[in-house]
Amino acid sequence: MRVLVIHGPNLNLLGERQPEIYGSQSLAEIDSALAREGRELGLEVRCVQHNGEGHIIDALHAARGEYDAIVLNPGAYAHYSHAIADAVASIGIPVVEVHLSNIASREPHRRVSVTAAACAGSISGFGLSSYLMALRAVREIHGK
Amino acid sequence: MRVLVIHGPNLNLLGERQPEIYGSQSLAEIDSALAREGRELGLEVRCVQHNGEGHIIDALHAARGEYDAIVLNPGAYAHYSHAIADAVASIGIPVVEVHLSNIASREPHRRVSVTAAACAGSISGFGLSSYLMALRAVREIHGK
Amino acid sequence: MRVLVIHGPNLNLLGERQPEIYGSQSLAEIDSALAREGRELGLEVRCVQHNGEGHIIDALHAARGEYDAIVLNPGAYAHYSHAIADAVASIGIPVVEVHLSNIASREPHRRVSVTAAACAGSISGFGLSSYLMALRAVREIHGK
Amino acid sequence: MRVLVIHGPNLNLLGERQPEIYGSQSLAEIDSALAREGRELGLEVRCVQHNGEGHIIDALHAARGEYDAIVLNPGAYAHYSHAIADAVASIGIPVVEVHLSNIASREPHRRVSVTAAACAGSISGFGLSSYLMALRAVREIHGK
Amino acid sequence: MRVLVIHGPNLNLLGERQPEIYGSQSLAEIDSALAREGRELGLEVRCVQHNGEGHIIDALHAARGEYDAIVLNPGAYAHYSHAIADAVASIGIPVVEVHLSNIASREPHRRVSVTAAACAGSISGFGLSSYLMALRAVREIHGK
Amino acid sequence: MRVLVIHGPNLNLLGERQPEIYGSQSLAEIDSALAREGRELGLEVRCVQHNGEGHIIDALHAARGEYDAIVLNPGAYAHYSHAIADAVASIGIPVVEVHLSNIASREPHRRVSVTAAACAGSISGFGLSSYLMALRAVREIHGK
Amino acid sequence: MRVLVIHGPNLNLLGERQPEIYGSQSLAEIDSALAREGRELGLEVRCVQHNGEGHIIDALHAARGEYDAIVLNPGAYAHYSHAIADAVASIGIPVVEVHLSNIASREPHRRVSVTAAACAGSISGFGLSSYLMALRAVREIHGK
Amino acid sequence: MRVLVIHGPNLNLLGERQPEIYGSQSLAEIDSALAREGRELGLEVRCVQHNGEGHIIDALHAARGEYDAIVLNPGAYAHYSHAIADAVASIGIPVVEVHLSNIASREPHRRVSVTAAACAGSISGFGLSSYLMALRAVREIHGK
Amino acid sequence: MRVLVIHGPNLNLLGERQPEIYGSQSLAEIDSALAREGRELGLEVRCVQHNGEGHIIDALHAARGEYDAIVLNPGAYAHYSHAIADAVASIGIPVVEVHLSNIASREPHRRVSVTAAACAGSISGFGLSSYLMALRAVREIHGK
Amino acid sequence: MRVLVIHGPNLNLLGERQPEIYGSQSLAEIDSALAREGRELGLEVRCVQHNGEGHIIDALHAARGEYDAIVLNPGAYAHYSHAIADAVASIGIPVVEVHLSNIASREPHRRVSVTAAACAGSISGFGLSSYLMALRAVREIHGK
Amino acid sequence: MRVLVIHGPNLNLLGERQPEIYGSQSLAEIDSALAREGRELGLEVRCVQHNGEGHIIDALHAARGEYDAIVLNPGAYAHYSHAIADAVASIGIPVVEVHLSNIASREPHRRVSVTAAACAGSISGFGLSSYLMALRAVREIHGK
Amino acid sequence: MRVLVIHGPNLNLLGERQPEIYGSQSLAEIDSALAREGRELGLEVRCVQHNGEGHIIDALHAARGEYDAIVLNPGAYAHYSHAIADAVASIGIPVVEVHLSNIASREPHRRVSVTAAACAGSISGFGLSSYLMALRAVREIHGK
Repeated sequence: MRVLVIHGPNLNLLGERQPEIYGSQSLAEIDSALAREGRELGLEVRCVQHNGEGHIIDALHAARGEYDAIVLNPGAYAHYSHAIADAVASIGIPVVEVHLSNIASREPHRRVSVTAAACAGSISGFGLSSYLMALRAVREIHGK
Repeated sequence: MRVLVIHGPNLNLLGERQPEIYGSQSLAEIDSALAREGRELGLEVRCVQHNGEGHIIDALHAARGEYDAIVLNPGAYAHYSHAIADAVASIGIPVVEVHLSNIASREPHRRVSVTAAACAGSISGFGLSSYLMALRAVREIHGK
Repeated sequence: MRVLVIHGPNLNLLGERQPEIYGSQSLAEIDSALAREGRELGLEVRCVQHNGEGHIIDALHAARGEYDAIVLNPGAYAHYSHAIADAVASIGIPVVEVHLSNIASREPHRRVSVTAAACAGSISGFGLSSYLMALRAVREIHGK
Repeated sequence: MRVLVIHGPNLNLLGERQPEIYGSQSLAEIDSALAREGRELGLEVRCVQHNGEGHIIDALHAARGEYDAIVLNPGAYAHYSHAIADAVASIGIPVVEVHLSNIASREPHRRVSVTAAACAGSISGFGLSSYLMALRAVREIHGK
Repeated sequence: MRVLVIHGPNLNLLGERQPEIYGSQSLAEIDSALAREGRELGLEVRCVQHNGEGHIIDALHAARGEYDAIVLNPGAYAHYSHAIADAVASIGIPVVEVHLSNIASREPHRRVSVTAAACAGSISGFGLSSYLMALRAVREIHGK
Repeated sequence: MRVLVIHGPNLNLLGERQPEIYGSQSLAEIDSALAREGRELGLEVRCVQHNGEGHIIDALHAARGEYDAIVLNPGAYAHYSHAIADAVASIGIPVVEVHLSNIASREPHRRVSVTAAACAGSISGFGLSSYLMALRAVREIHGK
Repeated sequence: MRVLVIHGPNLNLLGERQPEIYGSQSLAEIDSALAREGRELGLEVRCVQHNGEGHIIDALHAARGEYDAIVLNPGAYAHYSHAIADAVASIGIPVVEVHLSNIASREPHRRVSVTAAACAGSISGFGLSSYLMALRAVREIHGK
Repeated sequence: MRVLVIHGPNLNLLGERQPEIYGSQSLAEIDSALAREGRELGLEVRCVQHNGEGHIIDALHAARGEYDAIVLNPGAYAHYSHAIADAVASIGIPVVEVHLSNIASREPHRRVSVTAAACAGSISGFGLSSYLMALRAVREIHGK
Repeated sequence: MRVLVIHGPNLNLLGERQPEIYGSQSLAEIDSALAREGRELGLEVRCVQHNGEGHIIDALHAARGEYDAIVLNPGAYAHYSHAIADAVASIGIPVVEVHLSNIASREPHRRVSVTAAACAGSISGFGLSSYLMALRAVREIHGK
Repeated sequence: MRVLVIHGPNLNLLGERQPEIYGSQSLAEIDSALAREGRELGLEVRCVQHNGEGHIIDALHAARGEYDAIVLNPGAYAHYSHAIADAVASIGIPVVEVHLSNIASREPHRRVSVTAAACAGSISGFGLSSYLMALRAVREIHGK
Repeated sequence: MRVLVIHGPNLNLLGERQPEIYGSQSLAEIDSALAREGRELGLEVRCVQHNGEGHIIDALHAARGEYDAIVLNPGAYAHYSHAIADAVASIGIPVVEVHLSNIASREPHRRVSVTAAACAGSISGFGLSSYLMALRAVREIHGK
Repeated sequence: MRVLVIHGPNLNLLGERQPEIYGSQSLAEIDSALAREGRELGLEVRCVQHNGEGHIIDALHAARGEYDAIVLNPGAYAHYSHAIADAVASIGIPVVEVHLSNIASREPHRRVSVTAAACAGSISGFGLSSYLMALRAVREIHGK
């Protein structure tokens, strides 16, 4: 089973950016942990990061035929990108949304996710573990 | 490590209630699966179910000194019970919110969770797996 | 045919509470009138009253297998209890909502009923007659 | 006792229009049922149908001195016609609002009725029975 | 100078309808007073009353070439009839809006007049005097 | 194939009314152009104009069995007439909404069309061409 | 009968300030016209102008025992000064609100007048005539 | 004079729960202080605490005939429990609402109290003193 | 300990203004009662009244170094004067907001106090007692 | 006359993506049909597709001097991209907005198009025909 | 060239008031810096401070004929004083709005400036430099 | 000190695009003026322009370690790009927002800047001078 992990805008700065919110791990460390967990779960995991809304849509499209599931951290796009939501709804691959921080307890504009509405489910607030749990979740969904 | 699982209103009807949304497993089956997963993870898991807002608050309070973490499915209370949110904020025990269905893709009144704002994080949309992942999450949080 | 009538919060004070809005009949008198009308219509009618949101949900659940229809006056819960609305949607028994007063002509917060959205229909503004008509309505629905 | 039944816009298409929402009875069949029920209840019932907001206001005005009560199905005007609401408030005859479908469970714009606020009460969701119950209701109100 | 006075919905019931709000004069008495005041001011005054939105639009259109100014009491249509507002904007004749009651101090839905936005000005709160002042106002506007 | 064109409120004033917004053609000229285009497309075109909401609903109803498609310019009713929207949804004939001006670039109250939601599609901003394109559109829809 | 005219903020600039909205007459010219009209109507008229919200409240208070009626042009305070509204409600003297321009057809923030809600009535859109009509209005109210 | 003090949800955790907001006194200490102050003021004071909305309604009802006044700290229910507000309005006993913290300066959802609207008055922001002042207040009200 | 009492707009009319809301005591009587209560509590109390928003800000500023606490009745400014709120936040002296009436049960615009958000606490609904309680409150705060 | 057709986000998936909404034609088929129709109308048509908001803006800019008109399907960007709207307003070339589906009858967030406000007009709901009509529309506009 | 600097409410407390937001310089120090910068730029600078809304309006009016440009820090009035906005629009002198703090990053009520809409431009967030840049800006504007 | 100037969407069209709003200078001319001003102030200034949201985020990220401050004109992205706001908050370099036009006096959707909330300050309304002042501002901030 092949899984694509898409990190959205600003996640390339992880570890340096507001560590009190996003933790002190770098994106490379997260990607290593994802690869490791993937191997344990028997998943082929590939990770990409994009700051552009269009590039994230491109990546979602390109996943068709290449991947069996997607883990998506849309970052701030979660709250207004109906175009990404449409892409998720279009590709016919299960997508799980993750957030490092607990978006329900932050600023009002982060309380609703328009992209999550097109996903299979979402996990937020557990830092790296949000991602690791998402790997288990996509395996579960795939098994059904 | 002891974990209390609180199932909120209407979850006692699981399996019979709108199975196209909530799945066909009964609450007893979910509780068995939670016990099994708990044993594997080295957690002592106990499950309760309450329809009343006040009883959920009582259960949260009573957990102090008895449990190390809580998994809470507040059901519809998620969307308006500031009293439960206050209880979560008051007890000093990490709480993880779970939902069987993906609340972001349902009716507008289910898109914001006021209780999640007081929790450590939330997981929604994976049926039974939402709960199982929450057990892993609380173990992770506890380990920190 | 067995019918359960559930009176919601504050209805136990009927006759004493703001009679200019709710009329001067006591709840006991309403229950007698419901029993009488039930006998005439060939219905077995039982009445309960609860102030707690959770108790109303419990009563709705317990009605499964015991009653063929429910007449529900949710009182002020009509305007915010999504948990009661979920209970009504879960039990697979037709529920008719009633209000003694005409909620459309009162304060703004009473103009929308979130529980009525899960019911078969609603009747408001006719005092005791709201309930009596509801008995006829559930018989009609049952006959279909 | 004389009762005027006013059917609002689009009700002349009943039976042909969206039967999954409005039922398969024609307006003529409803009017016959109303006449029959009227005779049983000792009421003189006359039915009219108008698509125009102004014609409904005219009919409400003309009822003064001619009818003792009115049963009004304002159709979609229920949700924005403050002019019909003013007419109801002006004529000094009790008016009962009816809807065939349960407007509380349909699109958001149907959830509030501005005309019901000027009526004695309202009944919705029981198809033909909504009207039949309204006949009983106006007789009750008249008797007070 | 010829002036058309258009009375909107429900104004034919004046004197009988809620006299504590609208006063005890009948529409005929108001029309007499308008004729009298017109003669004093050297104005030819004609009065019509319509309950229908379309009829009011028809009357506004028909006034072109026949009248030099219009006094319009749109009643409740003031608050939602963009079609009447468009008609006022289309005909190229000055229109003055009047209301018997002080709409700013009544229910929220009466606080904004969408038709007044297309008029030359508006007068509200002075009963019959609202109309009499409007006659003076249109004479003034015409003189410019 | 027979097509009914319904012009809504104030369109009878075309050519005279705010020509900077609506153009300088009269309604008669538009109707001639529609007849001409109809002949070229093999359509039998008939045009009517109504200022009243009820008359537009009547015209929509009367089209059943007489016309195969309808082109509707609801004018300002587009923005609040749920009764016309219900009529469109009721008659089982495809309806195409047209506007002479580009309503998306005008006042805020013109940005949402509640009637378009019940139509097959809508065309706005091209003056007479909005209508001519609608004729082609209904022929296309009919051919399917 | 003594009448106080209170001109609110920025009205001292009349004639110079945006004459396309407010006309080209100076405040002194308006005051002369008010005095003249007052003499004709048998009213003793005095005019004051204040830019400060507190000074307008002081003037309203000081009018008690000194004046029988007040004509108030609150300027922009109309749209947010609940304190002036309270002053009007407190003094037991009838107050008529005037505006030179037709506030209903200007920017959204000018569409609701919170001070008008406390006045006996309001007149807007007639330039100087708004004031002159107000003098007649207060005489009328006084005569009752 | 007998006074009932009702402490709402989560107040049993006082002293342990967020002391920077709610102070470090336990509920028992507050109840002792209330008893002491009661004795000085010649009041018989009894204190209860409930987490459930229904239990608070029950307690308000049961106070009829037993107490002359009520001091109510509804906690978070203040912001959405129309059912408690209805109970306060139903029982015919003066109720004074208290809050330990100054709810006007906290999160937006705490700024409006729907229960206070049914009370005689409210006091918030003074910790224990909020309660002590409320005892004086009910005595004052009672004396009238 | 020196306490400044600032009475806001319209409070100079107390006793004469809407006594059913504000009571029948004059401001002078309130000031005497405050002086008396102050002597009992060992406080030096001085009272001022201002109708102007700027004068209230001036008074708040001037209190620095002269007074130890302030009791402020901002009247209607409570609901929109962010400038007074800023002044309260700037001066470093504890301020207690008081209202004679229960603002929570009055018009919607009185339900939120933007100035209270900057105060230590607020008391409303007890007439003169609101002020007397505030004197106790400031003494309490000062003692901490 | 040269025309640029810009397809926005996710349109590259046409035919595969939710065919019940968007039809079963591929984008290549649509582009062929556009080329064919262009040849018939004497237009040089070129088609591009972009998922990125910035790329659409780039394409709009690059069209200056190269194309005489633009047909734009902004997809979901229609509902929030003020940057694309600004680009349309900046380039001085007529732009016609098209949508395959009838956006007025879909989810609430699709009801307002902020980009259409900057276009000459818009066409939605006719599948491929929306595009074909747009070609005729731009030829018409160009001819003026 | 003569420039008037108007400091609004609470700015007289600068240096003492919330220095973490507004900096530690006193208003006198700011005025000195403005004089110094003015001399360098060849501007005659005079500074005034007012807490009252009316006094600021008076100062704006009085500037006509005396000053060539105005630098205005309206403080909290920026967010609701339509009267000051009207004054700025009335006087025919360019006004530049300044704020010491970055109002866009503070509380929601500070995010929109109604007075800035009437100014030539605005500068916020740079402490003293906001003012110094404004001096350069008015010289620039004047030179045009 | 090195400063990066980022011009957002559509700014490459400066001089040609709506010159009545944005002025007649080209972006190249602005960049020359910025270089010149930079030299005078001792700043190394580099300018880039991007239409894509993702490219602006990339540019902000890449500035880390390369520049000491950033001047950002986000164009229309200012009003909805929470992703750019997050980027500004992430990079740890002071950013000053500039706008050529006075956004406070334009369409409602331009009144709030979500990106300014993450910046050190903002300057709008002075055309080229907005940028020049921003250079001075960043030098000032850097010096602190």
